[in-house]
Amino acid sequence: MFFVSDSTGVTAETLGHALLTQFEGLEYQGITLPFADNVAKIEAAVAQINRAAAERELRPIVFATLTEPTLYERLVRSNAFVLDVFNVFLAPLEAELSRRSSHASGRSHAMASKTDYDRRIAAINFALQHDDGASSPRYQDADLILIGVSRTGKTPTCLYLALQFGVHAANYPLTADDLGKLSLPVFLKPAKDRIFGLTIDPQRLHQIRTKRLPGSQYASLTQCRKEVQGAERLFADQTIPHLSTTTISIEEIGSRILQALGITRRLF
Amino acid sequence: MFFVSDSTGVTAETLGHALLTQFEGLEYQGITLPFADNVAKIEAAVAQINRAAAERELRPIVFATLTEPTLYERLVRSNAFVLDVFNVFLAPLEAELSRRSSHASGRSHAMASKTDYDRRIAAINFALQHDDGASSPRYQDADLILIGVSRTGKTPTCLYLALQFGVHAANYPLTADDLGKLSLPVFLKPAKDRIFGLTIDPQRLHQIRTKRLPGSQYASLTQCRKEVQGAERLFADQTIPHLSTTTISIEEIGSRILQALGITRRLF
Repeated sequence: MFFVSDSTGVTAETLGHALLTQFEGLEYQGITLPFADNVAKIEAAVAQINRAAAERELRPIVFATLTEPTLYERLVRSNAFVLDVFNVFLAPLEAELSRRSSHASGRSHAMASKTDYDRRIAAINFALQHDDGASSPRYQDADLILIGVSRTGKTPTCLYLALQFGVHAANYPLTADDLGKLSLPVFLKPAKDRIFGLTIDPQRLHQIRTKRLPGSQYASLTQCRKEVQGAERLFADQTIPHLSTTTISIEEIGSRILQALGITRRLF
Repeated sequence: MFFVSDSTGVTAETLGHALLTQFEGLEYQGITLPFADNVAKIEAAVAQINRAAAERELRPIVFATLTEPTLYERLVRSNAFVLDVFNVFLAPLEAELSRRSSHASGRSHAMASKTDYDRRIAAINFALQHDDGASSPRYQDADLILIGVSRTGKTPTCLYLALQFGVHAANYPLTADDLGKLSLPVFLKPAKDRIFGLTIDPQRLHQIRTKRLPGSQYASLTQCRKEVQGAERLFADQTIPHLSTTTISIEEIGSRILQALGITRRLF
């Protein structure tokens, strides 16, 4: 599978993988050829695709996002099955909107505006400053606060929410004290309606912690069971919305949290 | 614009924004309706779309990723212009691959495998442990090392590379000492072929730093000019590949770095 784009290729990859995962058991190697924005680069891509075609029984599948029709026309002459997103969707959109598209490359991932860029950076900085054990957290400025025991996915989720949506997400690791008292720390109480809990299967937590600190009490199954049980009891007792991260991706965790708390994205 | 999905909606959003940015000057409000994976949720989405249609002159445009054809058929009856990615692309892909797709929702952002999840988390941890001023960095384990003066975008880029591609990216902030000597610190020399430099327009750097520490010497235009000049001289002198982050997005910075260093993604 090739992902050919005159920009980063992220759109082609996202779409391509979403479609190909619909074919169960299909194994494929994905090669991204980004920034193919002139004839020479497209001809180099075509040559590489044709070499792959010659080496294999099935012809390659190419997902493309080329805004320039003449480049697409060259690509489609390669010995591959070519699906071009812009070629398929732009014409019907032009008709619906009664206006012509600009056919300019790299727009979607070009920097839309300084404001958007600044928002994203601010969100990342916020997540980093409000990660496990922040020294002087400003929870009042958080769009949401993730709570959970150590290694339930709080940090990656906060960073994903910052990068993808510009959301200001803080996280707070539940302590033995919080779990013992079955209550939230005082400083979190004013933010109650923006708190979301993450939990995880104790067996999986045991695996993850063992990788980090093999043989430690922290990683023991008994300790993991105890902490997870405590956290889930706290969520139930305080009616805190929560989900288990055991079998879902960071993208799904992030999207479900925004939906549950009714939070609007700050980007796009 | 609506993004309707039986999963996170990230694919529909990515594609929709990429297409809509092709229409210069088009302003739109995007609403994402994720996890619409049953009849009740689709009917609720249709009702919301129809309300928006009644309030506006132009009918809404809907980008959908619905794997279940019966749900798509309901959505398409709304008073909107509906483009469904799976509906358009799955049939030709099925023909090309000579196999049926599973029409199962949420596959692309479901957790592909524990291995992939672990790789992603490991990459994020690596980026966090090798951020500005890491105490005991293991640069020998880095896929790449970003260098540059403070606030050129090193941290966000490293985190993006980790989340999106599972790449282990470290970053090292160039010191006055490095800039004065026009050479890399000794501990970076073995990693020379994996080093990439970030630079930025001094005026823009001045803006960014002023937000952080208004009126400081660190933020002054003179200081910014001096540091940027020093960094660019170092990159030229040591023939370190580099780019300016002034007007490009984090996605583009990330993709260009991987391409320049010839680094393979660890995810997908």
